[in-house]
Amino acid sequence: MDNTTTEYDPCTHRLLSFHDHIEAFEDGSDTPRAYLERCLEVVDSLEGEVYAFAAMNIEGARAAADASTARYKAMQALSRLDGMPFGVKDLYETVDMPTQMNSPKYLGWQGNRDAAHVFALRRGGAVILGKTTTTEFGAGAPPPTRNPFDTRKTAGGSSSGSSAAVGARMLPAASGSQVRGSIVRPAGYCANFALKPSIGMLNKGGGHSLAPSQSVLGVHAGSLEDCWRTAYYISSQAGGDAGYPGLLGDPVLGTARKPKRLIRLESAGWEGTTGVTKAAFEAALAKMSDTGIEIVSRFDNPKVEALEAALAKIPDLLPGLLGFESKWPMADYETTSPGCLGEKMQRMLQAGEALTIEDYRERLAIRVEVRAAQDALKGSADAFVLLCSQDPPPDYPEIGHTVYGDVSSTLGAPAFALPLLVVEGLPVGLQYMGWPGDDFALACQSRWMMDLFRSL
Amino acid sequence: MDNTTTEYDPCTHRLLSFHDHIEAFEDGSDTPRAYLERCLEVVDSLEGEVYAFAAMNIEGARAAADASTARYKAMQALSRLDGMPFGVKDLYETVDMPTQMNSPKYLGWQGNRDAAHVFALRRGGAVILGKTTTTEFGAGAPPPTRNPFDTRKTAGGSSSGSSAAVGARMLPAASGSQVRGSIVRPAGYCANFALKPSIGMLNKGGGHSLAPSQSVLGVHAGSLEDCWRTAYYISSQAGGDAGYPGLLGDPVLGTARKPKRLIRLESAGWEGTTGVTKAAFEAALAKMSDTGIEIVSRFDNPKVEALEAALAKIPDLLPGLLGFESKWPMADYETTSPGCLGEKMQRMLQAGEALTIEDYRERLAIRVEVRAAQDALKGSADAFVLLCSQDPPPDYPEIGHTVYGDVSSTLGAPAFALPLLVVEGLPVGLQYMGWPGDDFALACQSRWMMDLFRSL
Repeated sequence: MDNTTTEYDPCTHRLLSFHDHIEAFEDGSDTPRAYLERCLEVVDSLEGEVYAFAAMNIEGARAAADASTARYKAMQALSRLDGMPFGVKDLYETVDMPTQMNSPKYLGWQGNRDAAHVFALRRGGAVILGKTTTTEFGAGAPPPTRNPFDTRKTAGGSSSGSSAAVGARMLPAASGSQVRGSIVRPAGYCANFALKPSIGMLNKGGGHSLAPSQSVLGVHAGSLEDCWRTAYYISSQAGGDAGYPGLLGDPVLGTARKPKRLIRLESAGWEGTTGVTKAAFEAALAKMSDTGIEIVSRFDNPKVEALEAALAKIPDLLPGLLGFESKWPMADYETTSPGCLGEKMQRMLQAGEALTIEDYRERLAIRVEVRAAQDALKGSADAFVLLCSQDPPPDYPEIGHTVYGDVSSTLGAPAFALPLLVVEGLPVGLQYMGWPGDDFALACQSRWMMDLFRSL
Repeated sequence: MDNTTTEYDPCTHRLLSFHDHIEAFEDGSDTPRAYLERCLEVVDSLEGEVYAFAAMNIEGARAAADASTARYKAMQALSRLDGMPFGVKDLYETVDMPTQMNSPKYLGWQGNRDAAHVFALRRGGAVILGKTTTTEFGAGAPPPTRNPFDTRKTAGGSSSGSSAAVGARMLPAASGSQVRGSIVRPAGYCANFALKPSIGMLNKGGGHSLAPSQSVLGVHAGSLEDCWRTAYYISSQAGGDAGYPGLLGDPVLGTARKPKRLIRLESAGWEGTTGVTKAAFEAALAKMSDTGIEIVSRFDNPKVEALEAALAKIPDLLPGLLGFESKWPMADYETTSPGCLGEKMQRMLQAGEALTIEDYRERLAIRVEVRAAQDALKGSADAFVLLCSQDPPPDYPEIGHTVYGDVSSTLGAPAFALPLLVVEGLPVGLQYMGWPGDDFALACQSRWMMDLFRSL
């Protein structure tokens, strides 16, 4: 692989899609088994440089793909995802593969169940191919995973393997999870479509993400349609987190909807964003503006300025808030297996140990204020646009900064990573963010946005 | 043991308490090791008939008690719970004992961490003696556990072992969890004090309770003071569930507070309550009334009637709502290990499988309405009184009906089980319930209530 010489072009580059193969499965001109074998060929040729997988069950996947092939032949497909190869982020349990979380504490550890989304997908006929790499517990040391567009570079994290596998055309879809920037940043670096849903909208049962009050399960995919269908299917079958309504909207992506007014956000990320990345962002906004969409910034509207002021608090807010929630089980692991945590996890644990529950409550109250500042803008615009990262993918083992992902995570707001930008020849994502609960409207607007950029 | 001939008298009967031994530990006239050995003597003599434990680690407990003894000697106790023997409900993971959940699926299963509350308690110096029995996954087949006041009778469930161990004076405290009636009913049957806290107030990390939107971690104890101290300590160290503030109030029980007005609730439980149990409840209310407390019922106040009407919906509401949330992992277990679920779990799973996510959302909305009916009464009374069970403990293997526990569980409201009633010579609990978040006020009122009954 020598993708570094192939200039990435977001207008023409295509990853794997699945939904557009169903007709061929039904008429017999293609089969899920053949689709899987094509994925496996890509895995064979690239995995030695990309390292997207922490474990694979190729024989299990082949058996599942054969069963799916038989169902299509009998006109008895179980769902719209029947036969779709899928990668499971290695923070989530699988009954047929270990769950190791890039931690020596979990080396070879085998759970005795499928995580909720894995169970739902298998029931719908999806083909679970492997476990995709993660940073340590989704927050610490990076896995060996590289960026498929330039293997000297990072794939980002913590959903490193899912982003890399989709970006490398090994898989049409995979799961991710985000507490800070773990879906949107790596998705941007690897040219994925990804949905970080509104808080609680996808059941994270059987997952081991830290900081449950911000952790969400999401989906990476090679197309917007597969991204939405997969997320919706998981929600409809496994529900959201207990007590949440799950994703609202239709099972398939709706008609493209042109937004009228968008709010551009700087957040705490803008200051450290490289000039070339800023320029790519400005150019994208100019394209939107050219179609008549009004772009509103902090300088145009005092409520946007109030939100920006609130977002500026996030970098000070999160280490303690998330550290407190992660004390368990991190302190427990460090007690029973001293030295098992990497440096970054140690720092996160220390931040948590430094807080009392009273300190934690104060931070919860600040988060409520930050969310209120977004809520105050409801009805005044269709969505928000911001970057997925401050830069194109940095050299491995750097994995980039969470700061832009922190925005949608702290707000509990839905966000799509859209592969719309190119910086120094590499993919960078645009983060298209809505208000909590409006995931479907956001998906339809995202579709419009992709149509715009790919027609230019 | 032949307790059936000893008439239980709630005014004079005492279980083990711990808080009143600290002074003796400090002056050296007693030690945590000696306290533990006294517990072990009771275990030795009664466990063969009561079956409160699913696993024990006696050597580990002795080592922990010795370490605690040394700390008191050095005037370096780690917390108010240093040296306190404690039992862990077997739905919660422990690093030194298997977590089996009364299910063949988990026979011999060993987690690789302590649950959040266990970790917090060990850090505070508590002595973890064993795993206390539970019904299958906290909802299905009963464990072999018997009522220590009459071993032909049930200890109730699902927190069967914790209730029985505390009731038998084997332990001063143990953990429980409740989705329907799993703390308050068995606590009542075994004369425990127990706190089912407001929703989310104690961190249930490392637990495997089903139906997370109603599941709460709670505490069983032989005294009200130990019950509150233990719950508060867990919250202060491990936090509540992520995103929740944890228990508010003081680390030790406050001054007794006399309530002025109490609302008596029938709920869906009253109709099936045995006459003798009703009579005991009426007699308790009369005692309260005699002290000048105003007792308000559905016949006195239209808002109470509205709440009663809302509570009447609960028996139809919960099977689907909780079944939907329990589909995962129950359906997964049944798929990978066919036949592993008992009959009751099978029915729960079927109730869940019958629902779409749209049905589930409707049920969530009904629960919101039920909660609003309680909220409408805020400020008009100090607390609510209702029963913990419809009857005295029935013959094993019956475990009693959840219906009264359903009230506090559905409302997400705090409730103390107070060992105030005797029916047919056996303990029955009074449920003293407040509004979500007012756990501490409720604890102080409960103290007043105990003073009243024990002085009569």
